[in-house]
Amino acid sequence: MDELKPLEDQLGYKFKDRQKLVEALTHKSYKKPYNNERLEFLGDAVLDLVVGEYLYDKFPKAKEGELSKMRASLVNEAGFKKLADALHLGDYIYISAAEENNKGREKPSLLSNAFEALMGAIYLESGLDEVRRITIDLIEACYPKIDLGSLFKDYKTTLQELTQAKFGVIPDYILKDATGPDHNKEFEVQVFVNDRLLATAKGKSKKAAQQEAAHTALKLLKDEDKS
Amino acid sequence: MDELKPLEDQLGYKFKDRQKLVEALTHKSYKKPYNNERLEFLGDAVLDLVVGEYLYDKFPKAKEGELSKMRASLVNEAGFKKLADALHLGDYIYISAAEENNKGREKPSLLSNAFEALMGAIYLESGLDEVRRITIDLIEACYPKIDLGSLFKDYKTTLQELTQAKFGVIPDYILKDATGPDHNKEFEVQVFVNDRLLATAKGKSKKAAQQEAAHTALKLLKDEDKS
Repeated sequence: MDELKPLEDQLGYKFKDRQKLVEALTHKSYKKPYNNERLEFLGDAVLDLVVGEYLYDKFPKAKEGELSKMRASLVNEAGFKKLADALHLGDYIYISAAEENNKGREKPSLLSNAFEALMGAIYLESGLDEVRRITIDLIEACYPKIDLGSLFKDYKTTLQELTQAKFGVIPDYILKDATGPDHNKEFEVQVFVNDRLLATAKGKSKKAAQQEAAHTALKLLKDEDKS
Repeated sequence: MDELKPLEDQLGYKFKDRQKLVEALTHKSYKKPYNNERLEFLGDAVLDLVVGEYLYDKFPKAKEGELSKMRASLVNEAGFKKLADALHLGDYIYISAAEENNKGREKPSLLSNAFEALMGAIYLESGLDEVRRITIDLIEACYPKIDLGSLFKDYKTTLQELTQAKFGVIPDYILKDATGPDHNKEFEVQVFVNDRLLATAKGKSKKAAQQEAAHTALKLLKDEDKS
């Protein structure tokens, strides 16, 4: 199994149990008795904590809401794909021939999940410190600047980037209702992707309602990825 | 500050830095230069990991989806309120007179947040092992049985319990549309709480669409609690 040695070198981490590494790299399409979904479940929580603690320490004055926003900008499919790409993880994963034809090695969800599983496996073997070292090094190498202004994009922009990457389309916003007197109007907006209603939201302006709808839609798509 | 000694005894943990304990118990209404929101941010992730790892170890054959469902049943506001109550945390938290009058010491959100913050503080001082010991002992004492069947309630039931506790009302489900031929109908259902549309979902039966709508609504309410 020396094909995995370059990945270990890149990580600066030698697996005690090579089978755990293989499991972390095995997509469910590969039809083995094991796959990386359980390790991904664990890795997801490990990464939330490691990145959360990093931001907690780095920004001692930041409020909880700012920490949450920064973490959400780093801890998501696109963010983990970036870290997976830095490790060339796509070259190492085990996927079926069908997934291979389907450009599986480049899929954000597949790469992000494999990265989470990899960190889950290292956590199980060696604990939080080792995952922290690897993840924070990768993040600091991949992001030119880590602060709220640089990381956090508004929700409409983030949603558009996500739906373009995932579905090849941009969201549609529809004004469903405007109620109240002129000086105190309330707007209700719906956001659709591929004719599917993702969210409805209200706001004091069309823009505010759209942002809120995009925010809700992002949470929904993120949760769907997890389940 | 000996008023906090019984809490430490209950936890079986003596704080190295008593100020961290005070911070974890201080609600933002108390108007101090510090409050427990940052520690709660950290504790939330610590608990996700500790409970996730516990289930990962306890159920070596469980699939990722089952682990996620079990964790979601333990790691939520109602679940943490249960653990907070076992510690009588309501007796120790620092809240404003207004919150006091508003039954703040019994509020699920307030107690759940304080519990998360407390675990965040212990993690910072003493690491994951100490949090694991305390949390898992509490969980095993508070739940008669830990398995998927005992923990996981269907989404409609869970949503109803949540909206009753939070808003004092039950959700309304409205059939919005039914399309397709009789043998292959698709139903579209909306769920409202207090006249607010929380989610829309489709399904092959009314029941399936309602479950899916309730699932989405639960995610939304959970996310709103966090932000």
